[in-house]
Amino acid sequence: MIDHRRLRVALLGAGSVGSQVAHLLLTHAEELAERSGAELELAGIAVRDVDAPRDVDLPRELLTTDAESLIVGSDIVIELMGGIEPARTHILAALNSGADVVTGNKALLATHGAEIFDAADQVGASVSYEAAVAGAIPIIRPLKDSLAGDRIKRIFGIVNGSTNFILDKMDREGLSADEAQRIATELGYLEADPTLDLEGYDAAQKAAILASLAFHTHVSIDDVHREGIESITADMIEGARRAGFVIKLLAVCERLAADGGAEGADTADADGESISVRVYPALISRDHPLASVHGGNNAVFVEAAAAGDLMFYGAGAGGLQTASAVMGDVVSAARRHIAGGVGVGESPRQNLPTAPIGRIMTRYQVTLEVDDEPGVLARIAGILSEGGVSVATVEQTPSTDAEGRAHIVIGTHRAREQALSDTVARLQASDVVERVVSVLRVEGE
Amino acid sequence: MIDHRRLRVALLGAGSVGSQVAHLLLTHAEELAERSGAELELAGIAVRDVDAPRDVDLPRELLTTDAESLIVGSDIVIELMGGIEPARTHILAALNSGADVVTGNKALLATHGAEIFDAADQVGASVSYEAAVAGAIPIIRPLKDSLAGDRIKRIFGIVNGSTNFILDKMDREGLSADEAQRIATELGYLEADPTLDLEGYDAAQKAAILASLAFHTHVSIDDVHREGIESITADMIEGARRAGFVIKLLAVCERLAADGGAEGADTADADGESISVRVYPALISRDHPLASVHGGNNAVFVEAAAAGDLMFYGAGAGGLQTASAVMGDVVSAARRHIAGGVGVGESPRQNLPTAPIGRIMTRYQVTLEVDDEPGVLARIAGILSEGGVSVATVEQTPSTDAEGRAHIVIGTHRAREQALSDTVARLQASDVVERVVSVLRVEGE
Repeated sequence: MIDHRRLRVALLGAGSVGSQVAHLLLTHAEELAERSGAELELAGIAVRDVDAPRDVDLPRELLTTDAESLIVGSDIVIELMGGIEPARTHILAALNSGADVVTGNKALLATHGAEIFDAADQVGASVSYEAAVAGAIPIIRPLKDSLAGDRIKRIFGIVNGSTNFILDKMDREGLSADEAQRIATELGYLEADPTLDLEGYDAAQKAAILASLAFHTHVSIDDVHREGIESITADMIEGARRAGFVIKLLAVCERLAADGGAEGADTADADGESISVRVYPALISRDHPLASVHGGNNAVFVEAAAAGDLMFYGAGAGGLQTASAVMGDVVSAARRHIAGGVGVGESPRQNLPTAPIGRIMTRYQVTLEVDDEPGVLARIAGILSEGGVSVATVEQTPSTDAEGRAHIVIGTHRAREQALSDTVARLQASDVVERVVSVLRVEGE
Repeated sequence: MIDHRRLRVALLGAGSVGSQVAHLLLTHAEELAERSGAELELAGIAVRDVDAPRDVDLPRELLTTDAESLIVGSDIVIELMGGIEPARTHILAALNSGADVVTGNKALLATHGAEIFDAADQVGASVSYEAAVAGAIPIIRPLKDSLAGDRIKRIFGIVNGSTNFILDKMDREGLSADEAQRIATELGYLEADPTLDLEGYDAAQKAAILASLAFHTHVSIDDVHREGIESITADMIEGARRAGFVIKLLAVCERLAADGGAEGADTADADGESISVRVYPALISRDHPLASVHGGNNAVFVEAAAAGDLMFYGAGAGGLQTASAVMGDVVSAARRHIAGGVGVGESPRQNLPTAPIGRIMTRYQVTLEVDDEPGVLARIAGILSEGGVSVATVEQTPSTDAEGRAHIVIGTHRAREQALSDTVARLQASDVVERVVSVLRVEGE
């Protein structure tokens, strides 16, 4: 065997991903040395409690509660503790000591990404974070490297496995939201506190990271418009099915031309560009490849000016799956150490402004409950027309839960969100509309 | 603006991809400088004939027929001439002068890859070739870097857009092979000499490149078992449809355990490993994501031990689309120049042996024409059983083209290819079988 250089690797965190990473480092040492050109010596594993139960048996002598000491003298520091502190402090300490950092910490990158990338640039170290978005799916490296010479127009995808599992259960088995959530919790798809997933925070963190990369702009979680799946009912999913749609929680990162519309090829160089980053449940045609992303899987669609449409699909979570993404980053960091040279940092930032949600343009499906009497449809059409919202389809069905009422489902052409929401407010206030049942955006068209 | 370093870029070839690459280098100079940290100066474009018509207008003063002189002093050489010579000589000259090379030349890499990667390693330069497989889809970098810490078990995918276009037309519009080929030629999906595509050579070159990366083994086109789509008829496609399948030309790269079966997790460390690399038309369930890859698109499925199943989807060809992949490699090469250090070469090679096609195991669909009389099915079942081929499904239908004959369609359980082909030979020789109509492998299960 070749006489490899030896690199000291520190692991912070031994949860579901961390314990698998430790296991791979320990059991695949020879193969990893071949791949990276360096012997990867796991110097220690920092944990909160050395006696806590773990998914994988780890050598007791490697466990320590003293992360600070472990970091000192390490070549590569793998941070899989999650949360903001002490992860942030440890990562900054690692970078300042010249170590390369590999992390899967989406919450940290979506809030303190700028600070961390700047610290890496100053010392010529690298920060890799393939595991932070879409689990095992290689998406960070394709965006950062493979598409570096292209211009990304839009990314949209399913980046939260828990909510996809719930929506998929509701869609495929006709379950209520409560039933689907109960099963998701039983199967471990939802945490004890499911808010991060259900209210879209987790997806919003990932959207911020994807948008930062795609648009070379610092996007933090505060820039992301966020709506969760709390309001999605079995009725809405059934209605979507009848109309040929499925409801998915989507992360959308979009470059907007100066006029606020999604950028077409013809406006690629328009000044006054901005971006929109948002997470919400949306309708997608059943023919769209994202519609067949089932269970806890993730998929990310990328629309690029030259490359056209690309899709990346795979497991969105899971300790072992996500450990694969971490190990890819570790091997790459080791190769860089061997090759010499400084780490390639993030691209220079353009700092495009984030547009308010009112500026986006998309299609909508608006469901109204109305009195089932003559003239109602004409009144509604009038209000839509006054609001500048153009109607593509209308379907009227008797209401199943109120006598003498009907449901009107309106599919609009592309409209500005502000115009749509103003118009919906006017519909709500009018005497012909009893209730706005739902307003859903249509994506992927 | 930042004062960027200036890198000299030489472009060899100005065909459909090369002319788009030149256009992007010239028109996106500022954006590319931001992305790469270096001004990318297009020093010249080597062509065979400076007066030939091009897809894109290129400045006359950049065109030259003297590739040798252009290469001298270049930091990055982009080879998009195709073919073995003089591409090989130019690439070796570029590497020996210390330039990084970006190429889309699948034919060259599938035959002389070892020589070229060795030359790069010796001088510490890099060879990037994202454009060589699956056009715009990032697949090389994910395999080389993102999955570097994982163990790839199998890759299978649609990597030739022309044949996918033809099979898709036949499947979706009921066209004959000749009609579909005629349309493919009219639309520019097929070259004047369509042999490379139709007989699977193009897909086999890509399979060799993918297998080399995935299994860290030099795989050349000579190691690839190759069957084209020449024998696929409208009847076979219709039969596949009735059975819930679609026929796709697949490239399959598989790690075989010592017993020759596809490797399961439980045999991951078995000794005596080998690999199988093959291209053939195969049946895929209509539920499989690859079944909905239409037109000229490509998609590659990767099964990895830790990451699980991943899919990469996008445009498989097209000048502008493939130029995106080239530009990603160019920007990455430029970043490496700026960062310093040597290029990261290919992983050390394990040189796993290539197993003969007889050792693979998969499911098969065998269609026989028989005399429609009692006892025939029993005789056939007997021959299959003697051959060690276990039957999963049998369907008998009257033959449409011969009186008194019937078609028997047998779906087998997983069988060794050698056992299957020996058994089919015995069926063919028996007096109850008039004709073996078709034998197709079933993949993706």
